[in-house]
Amino acid sequence: MPPLVPHAIASLLPYVPGLSAAQVSRLYGVSEVIKLASNENPLGPSPLALEAIHRSLGNLHLYPSGGLELREVLSRRHRTKIGNVIAGSGSESIMSNIIRTFLCDDDEVLTTEPTFIGFRVLAMGRGVRYRSVPCRKNWSTDLPALADAITEHTKIIYLANPNNPTGTIFTRGEFDRFYAHVPERVLIILDEAYFEYAQQNAEYPDSLGYRYDNVITLRTFSKVYGLAGMRIGYGFAHEDLIANLMKVKLPFEPSTLAQAAAIAAIEDGEHLRRTLRENARSLALLTNALPKLGFEVVPSEANFVLMAPGAATGAQAIYQELLRQGIIIRDLSAFGLPGCLRVSTGTLEQTERLIEAITAIAGVPHATLG
Amino acid sequence: MPPLVPHAIASLLPYVPGLSAAQVSRLYGVSEVIKLASNENPLGPSPLALEAIHRSLGNLHLYPSGGLELREVLSRRHRTKIGNVIAGSGSESIMSNIIRTFLCDDDEVLTTEPTFIGFRVLAMGRGVRYRSVPCRKNWSTDLPALADAITEHTKIIYLANPNNPTGTIFTRGEFDRFYAHVPERVLIILDEAYFEYAQQNAEYPDSLGYRYDNVITLRTFSKVYGLAGMRIGYGFAHEDLIANLMKVKLPFEPSTLAQAAAIAAIEDGEHLRRTLRENARSLALLTNALPKLGFEVVPSEANFVLMAPGAATGAQAIYQELLRQGIIIRDLSAFGLPGCLRVSTGTLEQTERLIEAITAIAGVPHATLG
Repeated sequence: MPPLVPHAIASLLPYVPGLSAAQVSRLYGVSEVIKLASNENPLGPSPLALEAIHRSLGNLHLYPSGGLELREVLSRRHRTKIGNVIAGSGSESIMSNIIRTFLCDDDEVLTTEPTFIGFRVLAMGRGVRYRSVPCRKNWSTDLPALADAITEHTKIIYLANPNNPTGTIFTRGEFDRFYAHVPERVLIILDEAYFEYAQQNAEYPDSLGYRYDNVITLRTFSKVYGLAGMRIGYGFAHEDLIANLMKVKLPFEPSTLAQAAAIAAIEDGEHLRRTLRENARSLALLTNALPKLGFEVVPSEANFVLMAPGAATGAQAIYQELLRQGIIIRDLSAFGLPGCLRVSTGTLEQTERLIEAITAIAGVPHATLG
Repeated sequence: MPPLVPHAIASLLPYVPGLSAAQVSRLYGVSEVIKLASNENPLGPSPLALEAIHRSLGNLHLYPSGGLELREVLSRRHRTKIGNVIAGSGSESIMSNIIRTFLCDDDEVLTTEPTFIGFRVLAMGRGVRYRSVPCRKNWSTDLPALADAITEHTKIIYLANPNNPTGTIFTRGEFDRFYAHVPERVLIILDEAYFEYAQQNAEYPDSLGYRYDNVITLRTFSKVYGLAGMRIGYGFAHEDLIANLMKVKLPFEPSTLAQAAAIAAIEDGEHLRRTLRENARSLALLTNALPKLGFEVVPSEANFVLMAPGAATGAQAIYQELLRQGIIIRDLSAFGLPGCLRVSTGTLEQTERLIEAITAIAGVPHATLG
């Protein structure tokens, strides 16, 4: 008799999100908490998104449309057919549907390391083999090594660009050379959660320009659009892939308010520019200040930086002491990078406070931090 | 080489939701549409839920808690541990997680017919064998036949109580006798989406009273609480089952606003009573009026009735003519019941308009309806 809980699930380590402001406030008795742990937009969403939510409050008793209106808006905007677009409860929900739609027991998934943990949890939860190739010494994605790692069992390759938690990108040329090695039967998920931050870099490949039949592009309203709490993301792919995903997705995702907020948020170019400006200033501040304190900082094309304490005060000590002061950053042990930290860009003021706090901590001998 | 799209997915027929008011308005040029097709609460949600949404608008850029606060509220309310409770993006999302968590390729699922189609789509999408036993002549669930149909491969039994689209319930005694035949290794999903409507019937078994180790109870905020557009539902089960489901569910479902609305909605007992009163009046009206027009109506414990035209005007003709008049009901062909219709209770006024319209249609010879 097989066990009630399949082995893949029984042995699965779940995704553990960062601590919430409420948890830190309770644990450490801090009244004002700064959360720089989940790459959220510190400016919040566009006011247009909030207005759209207000206007939709009369329809909450009705089932949502399944994202129909957002798909229409996105297909017009990107000059593609509605059949090439899918919307879901966050890009992670679409990722989950890709796994449920296309994987069989003997398939393997392949990705790079370090990268977004959510994909690993979803793949391991499906019980398939999960393989990864390490990044280069400079933390960038090693696409030639990834191409070499493809086997006859490889069914899905997951690539985040910009990558999380490194903030690095691979270029259009690098992707082209990689793509030439990928068999047609292998699906590539291009997770572009941080697309808008990297977009102005001419080397960054906007995957919508490719329209390859075996590439699925995922994007989200959780990052630059400041709507992580609403759960809404979208994807582009060949219409045959989308048609099959549409069968498997929950018919009523995303929610009514998430869709209304997302459609309005897209229209607010000024809020997007303000967010990118604020992000660039905080990013510059972090990239300049942290190396002077002895930390290795990976140049980032997103809204966070990976910092490795190197010779400086240990990562755990910094992480814990910041928590005590009510500043939450991300300890990357769960990403397979013990000793590394990830810091999201806050407002300029929040970023300045973070750097002040780290400066004070790094100036204190490790042993006295308890 | 196995195909890119697994056979189970390629051959899958997706869930097709009912038409929306906007679609009917566009198709038939009707300005005012009455939607009685998806068992939604015509009174909308509690005003307390709307207030809670307003209060939560400042947190939309932050990732949600994964339902933590709702789980706390529900565990206190039902005097159970938080480890016995899960929250998700609608009870259908939890159902999807149950399938992903516990099913392997060789497992079978078993249910009754007719019942909620969403479960079939989820199970077929997982590629497992789906078997069902027909209901009795009086449309009630045939639990003895279901018990006889269990095989060594049966892993999940899905039971909706009240059942959709029949509106019938099975009693506590019936369930007890059935449960005695179910092996411990078989999970029973008790889908109680319409729990609150049936609750006052002394024969109706509140499954939370059972606390069987292999029963998962699912409930929703989409029906009596009028929050279908928000996507939020919850489940109760043994903590080992919940712990495994928690590994597989998306870490950030339900959304921030859905959770806030749900927690507030539970507190509004007056809105719940008003909804149940309005529903009982419409249900009585439908149950009295439709048989006089020649329709068979199944006595319902929920917020809808199944009607079979019998000797009267055909179901398709009634469905189409109502659509032309801007009244949407549900044609049950997709439920395997061609010739049957499902009508949700509207407000008393909407229900009266529906009966007037059906009376006029049923009085007209079939051929003249085009």
